[in-house]
Amino acid sequence: MTEEDGDRPLSLVLFSGTDDKLTAAAVMAVGAAAMGRRVNVFLQYYALDAFRADRVHDDHGLVPEAGLKPAARIRANGRTHWSELLSQAKEAGDVDVEACALSMDTLGIRRDELHPLVDGVEGVAAFMAAAADGPIVFI
Amino acid sequence: MTEEDGDRPLSLVLFSGTDDKLTAAAVMAVGAAAMGRRVNVFLQYYALDAFRADRVHDDHGLVPEAGLKPAARIRANGRTHWSELLSQAKEAGDVDVEACALSMDTLGIRRDELHPLVDGVEGVAAFMAAAADGPIVFI
Amino acid sequence: MTEEDGDRPLSLVLFSGTDDKLTAAAVMAVGAAAMGRRVNVFLQYYALDAFRADRVHDDHGLVPEAGLKPAARIRANGRTHWSELLSQAKEAGDVDVEACALSMDTLGIRRDELHPLVDGVEGVAAFMAAAADGPIVFI
Repeated sequence: MTEEDGDRPLSLVLFSGTDDKLTAAAVMAVGAAAMGRRVNVFLQYYALDAFRADRVHDDHGLVPEAGLKPAARIRANGRTHWSELLSQAKEAGDVDVEACALSMDTLGIRRDELHPLVDGVEGVAAFMAAAADGPIVFI
Repeated sequence: MTEEDGDRPLSLVLFSGTDDKLTAAAVMAVGAAAMGRRVNVFLQYYALDAFRADRVHDDHGLVPEAGLKPAARIRANGRTHWSELLSQAKEAGDVDVEACALSMDTLGIRRDELHPLVDGVEGVAAFMAAAADGPIVFI
Repeated sequence: MTEEDGDRPLSLVLFSGTDDKLTAAAVMAVGAAAMGRRVNVFLQYYALDAFRADRVHDDHGLVPEAGLKPAARIRANGRTHWSELLSQAKEAGDVDVEACALSMDTLGIRRDELHPLVDGVEGVAAFMAAAADGPIVFI
């Protein structure tokens, strides 16, 4: 361990758009931001689709393996919505949310259709540069 | 490459609870532990559910994309169970398995319901601190 | 930030074999290789199955959560196939693609059945050693 530990950014590639995975991602962002760690979020495919301004609060389902009983508990738990957790992370620290330019094109999504939590649109090279040598988590 | 290479911990966030993904995770833990690398395992959602003491040896299925033929081979292969692999990893090196406090609460799981492989319960901030600048793998 | 940023390898564990995830992985490989970063790809389970020489161009489907509308757009988009992207990544930089020895055995795949994009077969310990302290992305 050195005094540099934990000073590298945490980079999250959000690919899945189910509410359970988006919540897991947002919880990591909150934890890292609260520790003063820079967080880069890169939205692709189904996660990007879930960040359309008019769909954020839709029911995005759970991963297919969610059994009936766990699913019922997860849905009933009245937890904070992932968009709210991500908003808290942005207030607590340095969190940048970027839409993947290629996924925007593939899915036919325009910049003005995205939720205000999204800070911009960038390519994978810009994301990789921002990630530097920090961990990259694909969710 | 420096002499410091590989000295950072490997941190695994286990989210999925299917037997194929849990096996892939356990194999990584074995490999890293055998190399003398610290391994942090953080159990969330469906993976946490699979670590209930009375469910570890249940059939947790495979990911939905498992085709009939690969699935048959994977099931027929008489491999070592992931819990046994993880046990081997703990014997070989420094492997810490923590249940995510938030997931415990969400799924209504009590500490005494968990398998002895689980060393404790912690929040995401503690996990992020332990991960430091090492890789974080979400499975 | 130090002048060393981005000099560690990017290591991708490909577990899923759906075309959308394989494309996301290949795009990351292209981006990293173009930046001069070493890329290690480790093929397991369903991703390994997709790299059989006679199946690379099969339809490997999308993840189960793909909604009808996004799926139609993703399929209709005439994008570059992931195998072609990976080939471009190998031309642009230092990209090594290895099949997981354990998965080869589990799935009963022989070395000569794999696509020429695959450079060799190795165990998880060799992969972890190559990954060193760089990010490890599980897809």
